[in-house]
Amino acid sequence: MRPYFILSNDDGVSAPGLQFLIEALRPHADLLVMAPDGPRSGFGCSITSSRPLTYRRVREEEGLTVCACSGTPTDCVKMALNLFPDRKPDLIVGGINHGDNSSVNAHYSGTMGVAIEGALQGYPSIAFSLCDHRADADFSPLLPYLADFALKTMKAKLPPFTCLNVNFPLAPEFRGVRLCRMAHTRWQREVERRTHPWGGEYFWLVGESVNLEPEADDTDRWALAHDFVAITPTQLDVTATELLTQLKDVFTDRQ
Amino acid sequence: MRPYFILSNDDGVSAPGLQFLIEALRPHADLLVMAPDGPRSGFGCSITSSRPLTYRRVREEEGLTVCACSGTPTDCVKMALNLFPDRKPDLIVGGINHGDNSSVNAHYSGTMGVAIEGALQGYPSIAFSLCDHRADADFSPLLPYLADFALKTMKAKLPPFTCLNVNFPLAPEFRGVRLCRMAHTRWQREVERRTHPWGGEYFWLVGESVNLEPEADDTDRWALAHDFVAITPTQLDVTATELLTQLKDVFTDRQ
Repeated sequence: MRPYFILSNDDGVSAPGLQFLIEALRPHADLLVMAPDGPRSGFGCSITSSRPLTYRRVREEEGLTVCACSGTPTDCVKMALNLFPDRKPDLIVGGINHGDNSSVNAHYSGTMGVAIEGALQGYPSIAFSLCDHRADADFSPLLPYLADFALKTMKAKLPPFTCLNVNFPLAPEFRGVRLCRMAHTRWQREVERRTHPWGGEYFWLVGESVNLEPEADDTDRWALAHDFVAITPTQLDVTATELLTQLKDVFTDRQ
Repeated sequence: MRPYFILSNDDGVSAPGLQFLIEALRPHADLLVMAPDGPRSGFGCSITSSRPLTYRRVREEEGLTVCACSGTPTDCVKMALNLFPDRKPDLIVGGINHGDNSSVNAHYSGTMGVAIEGALQGYPSIAFSLCDHRADADFSPLLPYLADFALKTMKAKLPPFTCLNVNFPLAPEFRGVRLCRMAHTRWQREVERRTHPWGGEYFWLVGESVNLEPEADDTDRWALAHDFVAITPTQLDVTATELLTQLKDVFTDRQ
């Protein structure tokens, strides 16, 4: 039997990045696409609990079902798994995101939200992002990698509560593939003040991302800056293990 | 000089949990509260980039400024830090959340979104949650802990890219305080189908959280089930370090 993948993204069901991913993976697997009905960039792992969700089928072909959902990327994974329970996915895929989800951006990324939800539900999961946020970004340099990485992730037997965050540099050609740790970066000058034509202030979230460790050559940020594809293995158990003992004396003196 | 704390939450600026936290911390620090203008439960680390943000001051007293913001919990922290840059906070506090943010719930939690953003920006950060989602939850058993934990966190010199996730059990009295690791849990049966009065289906995100390791007595879920306060030290560098080497052979064969 052919493999079966569930796909979603955060740029919405009609985004070119998702369309490119569908065409790249279709020869290799049956696909169920459950994607937001519009942009959900920066939605992280957010879920929708205060209002109901809906979805509609927008495309149905041999081995391919595409649905548009009113919810977040994470909602989409939950909807796909719960409403199409007859077949367990061999892989859950987020992307291809229009924009960089390396380093701490992973915390805000709806594309990573897809992979995180997939892994939380116990399935091999991977997120793809291209460091080009433009709507007309050129995804063609990614073609040799997408199905290859997807099939490898399916077979790699990742440990529970882990997934992969794959970022492609904005470069005509890639120098290779690197397994990386997450760079420690920090967003700065993030709020831009404007005045409404009729008066009153409003604010845009913007900012610049500063690499706090620019010399370190083992980070995803470094790899991307040097035209390497960056794979950041990601864990969902976020316990800061070394702090468990250290903080015990500080916080448990009342016992 | 008195300490200076920035507070936010995900239940909104008028939520009783936030009001309780303000009163508990006021005697100990000057407070800037920048909280969402309505409920943002389950918003995780999401940010708002596609529409502008606004805020308004809703309360101004000696040592206390309260603002209501149109954005997410994470937006609120960014707005507070960028619009009130004259004073660096000694601590960033999320909560008190109406509901359980232990185990994998931390990934979906806007309350944890506050603490994560605080730590990403380099400040000591802590999130408080009570395992009672009701609007009229009784926060009084938490009173002896809130300022104590806040001041200890301020002084504890947490390593960069870490924060604390504190969950209080729903119990009239607490048996003590435990430093815990995140329990591995899984949400199941998460989508409930309904029919609109005029026809057409819609879906509510619901579900039940199953503990995958119920016997383990070192997890936050175990602590809460046994009436202990659970402190889960949390890291923001989510690199799955042990996978870096293991996956290198799998993914880099094209180099």
